[in-house]
Parts: sequence; structure tokens; C-alpha cells
Amino acid sequence: MPAPTLYSQLANHYLHAIEAGTLRCGDRMPSVRTLMERHTVSLSTALQACRHLESRGVLEARPRSGYFVRPRQQAALAPMKEPGAALPDPAQYVGIHQRVSAIIAKSQQSPVAINLAGACGAPELYPTEALQTAMIRALRGNPGLLGRPGPPTPNGDPGFRAAIAKNALWARVTLSADEIIVTHGCIEALNLALRAVTQPGDVVAVESPTFFGLLQILESLGLRALEIPSSPQTGISLEALELAAQSYNDIKAVVVVPNLQNPLGSVMPDRHKEDLVHWCEAQRIPLIEDDTYSALGDADTPLSALKAWDRTGNVIHCASLHKTLAPGMRLGWISAGKWHARVEMLKYAQSRSNESLPQIAVAEFMASGAYERHLRRLRTSLRRQREQVSAAIASYFPAGTRLSQPPGGLALWVEMPGKRSSESLFHAALQAGIRIAPGLMFSNSKRFDHYLRISCGSLYSRELEQGIRKLAGLVEALPHTD
Amino acid sequence: MPAPTLYSQLANHYLHAIEAGTLRCGDRMPSVRTLMERHTVSLSTALQACRHLESRGVLEARPRSGYFVRPRQQAALAPMKEPGAALPDPAQYVGIHQRVSAIIAKSQQSPVAINLAGACGAPELYPTEALQTAMIRALRGNPGLLGRPGPPTPNGDPGFRAAIAKNALWARVTLSADEIIVTHGCIEALNLALRAVTQPGDVVAVESPTFFGLLQILESLGLRALEIPSSPQTGISLEALELAAQSYNDIKAVVVVPNLQNPLGSVMPDRHKEDLVHWCEAQRIPLIEDDTYSALGDADTPLSALKAWDRTGNVIHCASLHKTLAPGMRLGWISAGKWHARVEMLKYAQSRSNESLPQIAVAEFMASGAYERHLRRLRTSLRRQREQVSAAIASYFPAGTRLSQPPGGLALWVEMPGKRSSESLFHAALQAGIRIAPGLMFSNSKRFDHYLRISCGSLYSRELEQGIRKLAGLVEALPHTD
Ligand SMILES: Cc1ncc(COP(=O)(O)O)c(C=O)c1O
Ligand SMILES: Cc1ncc(COP(=O)(O)O)c(C=O)c1O
Repeated sequence: MPAPTLYSQLANHYLHAIEAGTLRCGDRMPSVRTLMERHTVSLSTALQACRHLESRGVLEARPRSGYFVRPRQQAALAPMKEPGAALPDPAQYVGIHQRVSAIIAKSQQSPVAINLAGACGAPELYPTEALQTAMIRALRGNPGLLGRPGPPTPNGDPGFRAAIAKNALWARVTLSADEIIVTHGCIEALNLALRAVTQPGDVVAVESPTFFGLLQILESLGLRALEIPSSPQTGISLEALELAAQSYNDIKAVVVVPNLQNPLGSVMPDRHKEDLVHWCEAQRIPLIEDDTYSALGDADTPLSALKAWDRTGNVIHCASLHKTLAPGMRLGWISAGKWHARVEMLKYAQSRSNESLPQIAVAEFMASGAYERHLRRLRTSLRRQREQVSAAIASYFPAGTRLSQPPGGLALWVEMPGKRSSESLFHAALQAGIRIAPGLMFSNSKRFDHYLRISCGSLYSRELEQGIRKLAGLVEALPHTD
Repeated sequence: MPAPTLYSQLANHYLHAIEAGTLRCGDRMPSVRTLMERHTVSLSTALQACRHLESRGVLEARPRSGYFVRPRQQAALAPMKEPGAALPDPAQYVGIHQRVSAIIAKSQQSPVAINLAGACGAPELYPTEALQTAMIRALRGNPGLLGRPGPPTPNGDPGFRAAIAKNALWARVTLSADEIIVTHGCIEALNLALRAVTQPGDVVAVESPTFFGLLQILESLGLRALEIPSSPQTGISLEALELAAQSYNDIKAVVVVPNLQNPLGSVMPDRHKEDLVHWCEAQRIPLIEDDTYSALGDADTPLSALKAWDRTGNVIHCASLHKTLAPGMRLGWISAGKWHARVEMLKYAQSRSNESLPQIAVAEFMASGAYERHLRRLRTSLRRQREQVSAAIASYFPAGTRLSQPPGGLALWVEMPGKRSSESLFHAALQAGIRIAPGLMFSNSKRFDHYLRISCGSLYSRELEQGIRKLAGLVEALPHTD
């Protein structure tokens, strides 16, 4: 065995320091100049040592900042499993609210240093100054606005609806402004959609796991949820849905999040989207699309909406700007196809028209092209944050952990090895000042109790990484089967 | 017969001019100086003539402005009739939406010069500049607000809820801020209240006539309305309600507007309020109170809410600032007594928390005492406008017309003589550029087709008076029975 070269000795020295935790993930490596002075080596030896560690994935070079310690990739970190049997659970009344609200209430009572539970980005990721300016301009430009009820057209401000219609083109949806009804967020849109096509007691097919807010809506409307197995990659299983429809010939609606599903992060392939739209049409089952996240895909080619394949008005499209532009505004909308008139009446009877002011401000913002620029920046930030959080999970979580790799969006879906309970983790984490969304919020069953959703919305920082490391320690310590 | 005195000759001259329409209601009488010059009479003769006309109710003196022509009081203008038989119609599913939305759609398509249909005040009656300033201050004082979801406490901004709780004391209601859930207007509050205590198919007792928005909510929720005869003076007939409860032992809620009911303008006497609260409690029927208008009473002693007599949490109190402070903001709230937790869950599932911004701005406005000052001004303006509109109706509408005399609020309820149809009037008026709210919007029956609601929210003007005069002509010309 040849004697180790000077540069590999140097590299090994730092490798040990990193493994011992003296230098930690995210720390800056001493500068090349410092290395030269401290170890009395030449520039070329110092550089070679760094490059060697870089090539082994231990360090990363950041332009103009030097080398940094990278998160350690655990060999065992595996991609998500596909759902097993294609048979859904029996349709059941949702009893999720108690569970979810207990979790939310508990979260809110406890002081948290690290919030990994939120479903939107950090305030810094949104153009709050520009929106504030637009709001002030809308206020000044429309004196008396606060003294007049609602917008001039009852379904929403005409300029805002036109801007939304124009934006829908990105997702390959052609809508006229008249087909759009402005709502208080996507949540109100989903309520209206479900109220339009169901009665209490009806069966509604949803993805499993799915956004807990949807399960709460079903519960509050007295509907029964039929949870359809869904793939972390391709979303709802059409095969499982077809099978389910054979046992339940009374499915009254299908609700899906085709793009960057919450919590899976799945994106339905276009072929699946088309098939689902046609199948629902043929079965005469209204298809409700929750399009909250499609603008948050990593790729520059936007994700297309189910509505793009709708030729008969059977798709009810629901969306909002809550995640993409302004978490502090409740601006959503619905385009209800065949049920437009019914949804219009339900919205009017439920909460009247949304206020004009935010609509006017956002319409102006959107017309300026600032929205597209903002989205490009937001997508880049979220992608980086997702990578950073993934890397931290990869380095700290126990071997056997599985992790989603969504092509966009705000969250990761994590499966803990050894059937560890996310409910136990939730309580332990909260005690440690860390908030997470335990998997059992996302289904009426307990099937996802060994999963958790980790938000990547917060700006990545040293503390965040330490939080994930601490969380990983808690995961490790949980009772488990293997 | 003695020769007419000089002053009575002069007075008669002007009386003729007024009767001929040369001088019209609201016109300024020539000044005393002009009279002296034009008719070469003494100061005392000119003054005597004016005082004579004033004592006969033809002129009115306005401090520092001189004499003005008063509206001609038609002898036949009578107060409202009490409802006849104390028996309600059979409970029925409401089918009002079609009717109401056709009327609203038609109104919105037609250009209108005179709007007598609106249910809020003119923008000039609201402190829009101060609110705008408060909004801008809230935006500037809370950077990043538009980038953060919801208020820190899920049921609404803590400062706003505290301000609302403080205000509730006026209506003799003691609430803590925690008992208040902020909603998108009173409409959303009513929805939540009804969803909390009923199932589709249930029977709900309401006043007859009542606010059409309530009937639309009942319709949209699949509820059956039991319309209880109500007095234009004292509101819902408790006798009729008790009778109705004997035929319908399954009344699942009673909804009333105890103060300044829409459209009647009735105010329940405190004794009735107390009896109703106790009766509902004893019958275990949830009592839903719509308290939209109580701050708009003429008197300085505020009208008390039903909730003031609630000792068991059986009263669900719903209210909003839409009529009293800011028609351009959707700020309402609900205090749901026993059903607090259920309403909290329904609100969360239906539309999430209201945005923070308007709540922060209004909380600041309310804390400053500006709200009370504004309300005093608003009440005075509305009282004057109501008197002016009443006077115009009194002078121009056909003999036999009956008119409500509400002790506050925004509207008058008018019964046309000879069973003239308000539906026909609605169409004829719209053609003439005048919008009214026909009586048949306010009941599921056609019982109120010969009534109309006339808004007094607009600033009184020469054109408005001419509009009422024109409307009176259309009423006169309608087919009628006598
Ligand atoms: C899939 C999905 N739909 C809807 C929402 C809520 O939408 P909004 O805030 O626009 O009401 C969320 C938020 O978490 C979500 O994940
Ligand atoms: C009795 C009554 N309740 C509620 C409302 C509507 O309230 P908001 O605009 O606060 O939703 C009205 C408006 O006309 C009303 O007359």
C-alpha cells in the first residue's frame, strides 16, 4: 500500500472531524488560506484535499463562499413504496375532525422553535412589499371602496377574474372570466363544489392519503369518504378507483389533487388525467379538482389541470393563491362547469361576494407580469429548500426511512422504518419545540401512522437543520418493530 | 266675511304656487327680504305669511337657511296593519332563490338612476377615509402580514374580537373575546348557526315577512321554512309561534331579527325578547338571533340583543359591521353559546379564518372611539333620510298607502292600496330607471306582493324626491281592486 499523499492525509483529518461532529453539516470548511497556514501545506495540496472531499460528497463548493460540509447521505434512504393492494377501505363517515383539531390545538398551545408542519412558504418567499403597495394603490385609487358593498359583478371583481382566466391558460385550461366565481380560498371552493353535487350520506372517492382539510369538509357535510390507494409518484390509482366503483355504484363525486398532491407530492401523468376525466364523464360522476399547487412545479413547463381535458363541464376546478402568492389573503376561485348556476347560488347564500379590495390589488399585480417573475423565484427557492430538507433527513433519519421526491411543492412525505408511530413522534417533537404533521391526519384510517409530512416552506437555516437532526433522534428513539 | 288680511293674501298666493307645482317639495321659499321687495309688503306681513304657512304644515323653517316647502302629507297615509290570523303557513321548502336571483339579475342588468332597493347606506355615510387610513396603517405596521396565513388565533384577530366583545356590552350582552368567531359577514354566521343545529329537511321558524337572504340560506341548506306572522311594530308574534309549535313539534331552530327587522323595521319589546328566549329554552329549540341592525336605532339608548337574556347558551348571536361601519368589508361574527365548538369546526372546514388585515384595521378604528362617533352621525343621517323619504311617499303615493315607521334603520316597508302588485311595479320602475325591492322577495308565499321595501340609505336629493314621485305615479297607474 503506497504511503498516503499529503492531500489525502489532510482530507482524512477533516473527514474524521466531520464524522466526530466537530464540523457539522452546513458548517463552513476552513478556507484554503487557513488550511495552508494551519497545516503548512501548499495551495495545491489544500485545494486538492477540498476537491477530494467534494468528489466524495462530503463537502460542497458554494460560489464565492468556499466549501461547506454537506449532509451525510444515509445509504438506506429509499424511495417511497407504491401502495399495495388496489382495494380501498369501505366508505365511511369521516371522523377526522376531532383528531385533526386536537393536533392543531395542541400545536398552537405549545411554543415551537421549529415549525415543520405548515403548508405554506415562509413570509419572505412571497412578494409582500409589492402586494402591500398594490393594496395601498387600490385603496387610494378607489376612494369610497370600503363604503360600497361587494364588487360590481356578483361573482367577483371583473379584472381579477380576467387575470385568473388568463393564468389558467398556463395549465392548458381555457376559461372565460364569466365562468369563474371568486371564493374565500380553495377551501370554500371545495365546500361549494361538494355541496353542489352531493347530499349528506353520499359516498365521495378521495385519494389516500389526502389533505386533512378535505376530510374535515367531508365530515362537516356528513359525507362518506371512500379512500382510494394512491401512488406517491402518479397519484390516485385509476385501477383501484374502477374496482371501488364496482362495489360502490353510488359514488357521488371524485375529489383529487392531480398536481403535487398533499401530502404525497405526486403528479398524475397526463395520460392518467385524461383517462380519469373520461372515466368520470362516462360514469356520470362529477370530478372535483383541487388545483392548489400546480404553479409550484419545479419544471418551467407548467403542470396541466384535469380541467384541460374537460369537454362536457363535468370537472369542477377549485384553486387559490394562498400557497402561490399571498398566504395572508383568502383568494380562491371555482369554475364549476355544468354546476355553475348552482354554485353561484350556493356562494351567494353562503357568504356573498368576496370583498373587492384584495381582488383589485392582485389583478393589478398579475397584470404587471410580476406574478410570473415571483413564481419563478418561488419555485427555485422551494426546490432548493426541498433539497436541503431532503438531504438533512437523508443524513440524520434512521436507516430504512423512505422519502418522497416530489417534482415541486412545499412538502415531503416521510415513512419511518419499523412502524414507528407519528402520533408518538408528534407529542415528543412538540415537547422538544418542533412541530410536525403526523401521518394519521391524512386518512380516516390509521394506515399512515408511521408517516409524517415535513414542510419545506421555511427558509433553510442552521437551526432548521439542527431541528431535523433532533427530530431524527426522536424518531430513532421511538418504539419500533425492527 | 271680513276682507282677507294682507298676510293671508300673500300666504294664499304661495299656497297656490305650491299646489300647482311651481314651488316644489324641498324648494326654498323666497326669503323674507325678497317677499318684501317683490310684493311691497312690510317685514311683519312677510313674516306673518311665512309663519302662517308653517303653522299649516306647508313650510318648514330651517335654522339659518330660511323657509322650505314641506312634503305634502296625504291624509290617507296610514300606519301598518298588524298581521291578521295568528296561524302560520304550513312549513315548506323554500323555493325563493329563483325568484330573488331573477330580480337581482334583472336589476343589475338595467341601468338605474335611482336605487331604492339597496340594504346599506350611501358610501358617503361611512367613514371610508378613516378606514382607508387604518388599513394603510395596518399594512405598514405589519410588514409580511400578506405573506402569513390567518390571524394568530384561529377564530379571528384577538384585538378585533376584544373590540367586538366590548361593543356587545352596548346591547347588554356580556361576552368574552374567546366566545366570538369572526365570519365573512352575518350571512356566513347565519349559515354556520343553521348548519350547527339542523339537518336537511328540518323545519325552521322565521318571521314573515323576512330578509330574503335568510330564505335563500334555508333553501340552499334544504331546510323548510315555517313563516310566523310578525308585527310591523313588535316583530314575531309569540302567540303565533306557540301555536305553530303545537302543530310542528319538530321545529329545529327559530331565527329572528329582534331589532329593526328587515323589511318590517320592527323592534321586539324587551318583554317579548325575554319571553322568546325563555320559551325557546324551555322547548329546547335553538334560538338564532340576527343582530345586523341594532346599532342603527334612532334613540341613544341602544337596543338590546336577545343574547342579553341568554343564561344557558341556547341563543346563537350573529352580527356584522356591513351595515354599520363598512359595507366594503365582509366582517361579521358569531357567538354560538352551546354550539361554540361545533361552529368553530364548521367555520374552519367551510372557509378557514378570515384574513387578518381588515380585522386589525377595524380593531384600531374601534379602539379610538371613532366608531361611536361615526354611529351617532350615521344614526342622525339615517333618521333624517327616513323622514325625508317617508314625507315624499306621504305626499306622492296614492291615498290608502300604508307605511312603516321604524325607530331606526335603513328601510321603509310600504303597503300599496288596492292590492297592486309589487312584481309589476318592479318591472315598470326598472324601465323608468328606478330600482325597488318588491315585497314578494320577503316570503316564500305571495302574501306580500302588494308591499315594497324602500331603502332610505341614499343621500336625499331633489332627484331622489323626483324618483319617488315618478314611482308614485307608476303605483297609481297599476291595476288595482279599489
Ligand atoms: C390540497 C389542498 N387544498 C386546499 C388547501 C387550502 O387552500 P386555501 O388556503 O386556498 O383555502 C390546502 C392547504 O393546505 C391544500 O393542501
Ligand atoms: C337581516 C339581515 N341579516 C343579514 C344581512 C347580511 O349581512 P352581511 O352583509 O353582514 O352578510 C342583511 C343584509 O341585507 C340583513 O338585512
